[in-house]
Amino acid sequence: MLTIDLNADIGESFGVYRLGDDEALLDVVTSANIACGFHAGDYRTMNKAVKSAVMKGVAIGAHPGYPDLFGFGRRPMAMPAEEIHELLVYQIGAMQGYCRANGTLLHHVKPHGALYNTAAADPLVAQAVAKAVKDVCPEARLMGLAGSELVKAGHEAGLQVMAEAFADRQYTAEGRLVSRGSPGAVLEAEDDVVTQVTGIVFRQQVEAIDGRAVPIQADTLCFHGDGKEAAVLAKVVRTKLEQAGVRCQSPASAGDE
Amino acid sequence: MLTIDLNADIGESFGVYRLGDDEALLDVVTSANIACGFHAGDYRTMNKAVKSAVMKGVAIGAHPGYPDLFGFGRRPMAMPAEEIHELLVYQIGAMQGYCRANGTLLHHVKPHGALYNTAAADPLVAQAVAKAVKDVCPEARLMGLAGSELVKAGHEAGLQVMAEAFADRQYTAEGRLVSRGSPGAVLEAEDDVVTQVTGIVFRQQVEAIDGRAVPIQADTLCFHGDGKEAAVLAKVVRTKLEQAGVRCQSPASAGDE
Amino acid sequence: MLTIDLNADIGESFGVYRLGDDEALLDVVTSANIACGFHAGDYRTMNKAVKSAVMKGVAIGAHPGYPDLFGFGRRPMAMPAEEIHELLVYQIGAMQGYCRANGTLLHHVKPHGALYNTAAADPLVAQAVAKAVKDVCPEARLMGLAGSELVKAGHEAGLQVMAEAFADRQYTAEGRLVSRGSPGAVLEAEDDVVTQVTGIVFRQQVEAIDGRAVPIQADTLCFHGDGKEAAVLAKVVRTKLEQAGVRCQSPASAGDE
Amino acid sequence: MLTIDLNADIGESFGVYRLGDDEALLDVVTSANIACGFHAGDYRTMNKAVKSAVMKGVAIGAHPGYPDLFGFGRRPMAMPAEEIHELLVYQIGAMQGYCRANGTLLHHVKPHGALYNTAAADPLVAQAVAKAVKDVCPEARLMGLAGSELVKAGHEAGLQVMAEAFADRQYTAEGRLVSRGSPGAVLEAEDDVVTQVTGIVFRQQVEAIDGRAVPIQADTLCFHGDGKEAAVLAKVVRTKLEQAGVRCQSPASAGDE
Repeated sequence: MLTIDLNADIGESFGVYRLGDDEALLDVVTSANIACGFHAGDYRTMNKAVKSAVMKGVAIGAHPGYPDLFGFGRRPMAMPAEEIHELLVYQIGAMQGYCRANGTLLHHVKPHGALYNTAAADPLVAQAVAKAVKDVCPEARLMGLAGSELVKAGHEAGLQVMAEAFADRQYTAEGRLVSRGSPGAVLEAEDDVVTQVTGIVFRQQVEAIDGRAVPIQADTLCFHGDGKEAAVLAKVVRTKLEQAGVRCQSPASAGDE
Repeated sequence: MLTIDLNADIGESFGVYRLGDDEALLDVVTSANIACGFHAGDYRTMNKAVKSAVMKGVAIGAHPGYPDLFGFGRRPMAMPAEEIHELLVYQIGAMQGYCRANGTLLHHVKPHGALYNTAAADPLVAQAVAKAVKDVCPEARLMGLAGSELVKAGHEAGLQVMAEAFADRQYTAEGRLVSRGSPGAVLEAEDDVVTQVTGIVFRQQVEAIDGRAVPIQADTLCFHGDGKEAAVLAKVVRTKLEQAGVRCQSPASAGDE
Repeated sequence: MLTIDLNADIGESFGVYRLGDDEALLDVVTSANIACGFHAGDYRTMNKAVKSAVMKGVAIGAHPGYPDLFGFGRRPMAMPAEEIHELLVYQIGAMQGYCRANGTLLHHVKPHGALYNTAAADPLVAQAVAKAVKDVCPEARLMGLAGSELVKAGHEAGLQVMAEAFADRQYTAEGRLVSRGSPGAVLEAEDDVVTQVTGIVFRQQVEAIDGRAVPIQADTLCFHGDGKEAAVLAKVVRTKLEQAGVRCQSPASAGDE
Repeated sequence: MLTIDLNADIGESFGVYRLGDDEALLDVVTSANIACGFHAGDYRTMNKAVKSAVMKGVAIGAHPGYPDLFGFGRRPMAMPAEEIHELLVYQIGAMQGYCRANGTLLHHVKPHGALYNTAAADPLVAQAVAKAVKDVCPEARLMGLAGSELVKAGHEAGLQVMAEAFADRQYTAEGRLVSRGSPGAVLEAEDDVVTQVTGIVFRQQVEAIDGRAVPIQADTLCFHGDGKEAAVLAKVVRTKLEQAGVRCQSPASAGDE
């Protein structure tokens, strides 16, 4: 039976500032990437997010980012690989604290925003990220863009890896994401999203923006976006997949540990 | 044979800002309290401090504080007990990340500054601190002021506890520290420090500021202060104690684990 | 002809985090209190808020607060009066920078949150706030709770003062606000708000929570709250007042300068 | 009579963290660049620095930087020109607040660290900086690297400009600074510094690292470095210059306003 993980970013609020609809997302995804207090989140929001995920049976991931609350971790920051490693050791360790305090295990680590992109393209950054996971929590999975340097670095470090595909982002013929600025970068129509997801899950391929078929091997699908919409879209996709006989679950609940 | 632990605060630098002489302190103390990035320290300084402590065989403690870099964690902050707990889960978790990344275990947790004082006096805060240690790292020791609510809460939580005395601070007849503002709060003369330490280690008592003998049961002595001086004073005291046949070592190296 | 100013807090967003509906509020109030980057707001949000206020002809106020983004400036912080002064000099100066850059003048200063409350009750804090306005921008008005220490300190410092009443908050028989935690603290029904505002504007009195009439002398009415609702309520009140022949305008547009 | 300004960076402490010896520097330089709380400094340190400068008759400059306390403003940050402008409006405004509160005028603005370098090379950033000065405090001088884009942008904006040379940095044949990483970037020997300064002041030229004479037109000399040494070097240079009949003073005290 085909299985796939569905993931989303949560825990991105800060103090009085609310961002996203964590509860709605936790009702539909199977694994959650929780911000660690550097690009978003704070020491109270993290605990709340972990508690909710545990209660809803959603696998918990650390979602570390650059130290840039103002820029929400979306601005590239030049950092030596050693600093990237230290930055992630801190954030993964903190998230593990909340996991232990709530009687659960850290399931995966997925870098956020500009760090995600840099780790996808730069082997040294990718290796620093993988090393941090390996050093702090080797039993956690490393989640990264399918086909990226990060996935490669995770395998080389001997980690379990979750290759990620995007439900609503267009791909280039090389299997990269069309950058957000470009026209057609985001699939707007629900049908197009369902078609793309179905292609990924059943045929391990997506139709690139130029019409070519691109092979893609994904373990998890990312549902991105603000507020209610991401959750609604994820629900539609999940229902379609389940109707087609696909089981939606995280690796952990799939019984791999 | 009598044994005692000697502790000091390190890892308090931030970015380009240097504070204290960590290397000199690590050469003489047996356990180190490392700032966790909230009142002082940062994600690079913490790693450096843990590495140095491991290399010099000094036991590593998390030194969590209020989220107040500008005030160095010395300003009281009103917080519900639940928030205190979350604040410590984060910081202890982060420090454990560095311990694991450097192949060692977290040895103890000691709250910093205003949080140390509040936890010494307020049972609810003390319990929140003890619960955080219990939840995140139950094998770590809780370090707190001898005779305080924090020590009591640690025992009630079933934690190993390190009761702390101060080498160079005057005590009241009730066993409290004379507050820093008051005259005579700090013992300036080296001889007075040695006399006080000797009293604590050999007779389990200090001479209070009014001359009365006050019983005190301490497992560790704190050497406080900025830069070279704290290290120099600790060295003098350590030499005197060792000449008198006392063994200076952390509980971990004493073989209790 | 009776005139009254209507004010609201704006510019409270931070980075990607949105708070409140600034544009809707600026369409109805006559003066705006803009956060200065310490408890809320940032160096981009401030400029945007000033620009919008200028475009809509709304008088611009600095809304300084405690340095506490996480707590949104709602948590009391113990600070010597001298530090309060320095804290406000910084924030008022920064806001004046944006005023000059946008070709306008700073119209008033109103402390935020916990600082507002402390300045209302504590004469030393009130004097420190008034002194900061006097030192940096003596032509700006000081806005504070009608009947408070802050209003008194403003008068003593020789500043123009705007005494503030609240449209939707219940008062005690002593003329204080019923604290938010208490039942009945906030007037929920639109009619009750209109009745209270009418009493303040036409008879200089409010009906306290125990039914007694309390004298109140107000130059401005505060519309508080999140998002659309505050703007909608303000619109209702403004319409009622104007139908009753009251002119809604800031002191500046009233031609006092 | 030849005159020259001598400048240094001060006010770079933060909270309990001390950096540099402000008092020693203020005893020898004629204008001071005071950090504005983004890359260094804080709302108390700034006031203290302004007070000391006023007391010692040293002209006061705002020293704005990137919002990066951890990196001390030395890390380049990609920012649109509009954001650079807003960033500087805030910091210049805040510094003007302290100037007014201490009965003085803002004398100049000099960007810090990575922003200084970017503004020297990138015309759009240079124009954004110049525009911020023009918008907030057009009577202040803009200080920038002699021959740089920033100096050019200042002239184009109609500002008074102070072209800056470095007493102890080697120049390339193109009149740029040899980058810090390169061998020979910093003149270590006191004699070499005096020779370079003498060349700048009396002959408007420096000897580049390859031996060629490079023309340089400077209004101010920067004394850089940590702690006592910068002040000592500045004192030596000042004494030599004065013995040679040069008057060391800021443009303001030279009576241009």
